[in-house]
Amino acid sequence: MMNKQHTYLINGGTDDAVSALDRGLSYGDGVFRTFQVVDCVPVNWPIQYQKLVADCGAIGIVCPSAELLMADFQVLFTIDETAVAKVIITRGIGERGYAPPAVTTPTRIVLKSPMPVYAETNFSEGVSLYVCKTPVAHQPMLAGIKHLNRLENVLARAESLDPVYVDGLMLDVDGHVIECTSANFFIRIGKRLITPDVTQAGVAGVTRQRIVDLAHYLQLTAEIGHIRLSDVLSADEVIICNSLYGAWQVRRIGDTHWPAGSLAHDLRELLKV
Amino acid sequence: MMNKQHTYLINGGTDDAVSALDRGLSYGDGVFRTFQVVDCVPVNWPIQYQKLVADCGAIGIVCPSAELLMADFQVLFTIDETAVAKVIITRGIGERGYAPPAVTTPTRIVLKSPMPVYAETNFSEGVSLYVCKTPVAHQPMLAGIKHLNRLENVLARAESLDPVYVDGLMLDVDGHVIECTSANFFIRIGKRLITPDVTQAGVAGVTRQRIVDLAHYLQLTAEIGHIRLSDVLSADEVIICNSLYGAWQVRRIGDTHWPAGSLAHDLRELLKV
Repeated sequence: MMNKQHTYLINGGTDDAVSALDRGLSYGDGVFRTFQVVDCVPVNWPIQYQKLVADCGAIGIVCPSAELLMADFQVLFTIDETAVAKVIITRGIGERGYAPPAVTTPTRIVLKSPMPVYAETNFSEGVSLYVCKTPVAHQPMLAGIKHLNRLENVLARAESLDPVYVDGLMLDVDGHVIECTSANFFIRIGKRLITPDVTQAGVAGVTRQRIVDLAHYLQLTAEIGHIRLSDVLSADEVIICNSLYGAWQVRRIGDTHWPAGSLAHDLRELLKV
Repeated sequence: MMNKQHTYLINGGTDDAVSALDRGLSYGDGVFRTFQVVDCVPVNWPIQYQKLVADCGAIGIVCPSAELLMADFQVLFTIDETAVAKVIITRGIGERGYAPPAVTTPTRIVLKSPMPVYAETNFSEGVSLYVCKTPVAHQPMLAGIKHLNRLENVLARAESLDPVYVDGLMLDVDGHVIECTSANFFIRIGKRLITPDVTQAGVAGVTRQRIVDLAHYLQLTAEIGHIRLSDVLSADEVIICNSLYGAWQVRRIGDTHWPAGSLAHDLRELLKV
């Protein structure tokens, strides 16, 4: 198994498979996270684990212990290696029917995959986005959570597979910009660094939160607010971020172009802290 | 395996398991249906299969052939038996990332479970519902489809496990009544039989469609419309329906009670056609 490009552990074992009765499959009844692992240790692990626990708790799943997950990382990853971990926690196996069983044992899946090979120009020059037609639905009970109900993201990402675009920009049903399919989103207007409110729709990513926390080191005031596409197109700089590539500058959306800026580079440096 | 209460086939085989890389698990990237199987034959199979194909097509999955699925039913079910089939079709196995792979082989899962044991009074006297706090989100790209993104239903059903209630009534974010967590919904006002519009949210169930098609035999005019909770509470009769129990009269929601009516019985008879 360790020779395959993707390797994984299910509940700590290499022999188990996912049950056809797992509620993660039946209903998307679970959560996940994706992050880098360097020398067997997840980058920003305390924050990633805290968010995993919070997301599990929001839908009533008791997250497996950090020790169990760390033991999985020790088995799957090796020293002197930088790779990607995806952790999926589902509510576990259940009979037919939406009601969660009285007693469930969460299913814990840790998948390892190689770091994506990003074009160097994404970092040095910036990237282009398309604007998705698929909206992000408003669901205050699930907003912010990185849960397994991601069909919106699948449909939105499938709208353009043209490699000129690294991702698609998703708006909510009211026309507010929320996020990209695999990234959070910031705009800079002067000294203000604004990221969309995700209390009605979207994912509250760890890198987004870290940028909000750290922005003051760049003499920027981080804000969470409602952003329309017109606000984006008139912003001084536009940034997308996630746990794998850090931050990239958006240089083009549709017919709107931005000159090269320094913010994405500065944020990537800051995220190394 | 055939001795267990739940039995299943994955891609026609009993040995396979679900891959940890299946997009049904990763993203809820798939659809499902639940229906009765009598003497190895699914009830209303042409309509159920047509809806399965339509739902697959709506998210870009090519549905396995009816012959393959029928062969699965022949293996899993036996003559002189009435049981429940759940069919899950996912987009198949994929690498990490939302974009659908260029080539995928859908995963086909058929699960068999016993018919639920419903209280006889649900049929003879009717049922009670609670009103869910969890709203149904508006997502026009996914509305109507019975897809695997069902966390809303899980949270809504978990709001009350008091056995006095058979299900919970779900409203959309605008306050329109949409459905129950496991049933579609009708109200009768005089000779009008109205079911909620599901073009923005909800599932367009097969039994709902059959009732719309057949209502004229009961001298009722079927309509699809926007229904508020106040419309429900002042209706002459309230009905919930699904493929397993047919139709039940709702006798109580909150403090509102309805006298016994004959519509649910008449609909169940009609659905036998």
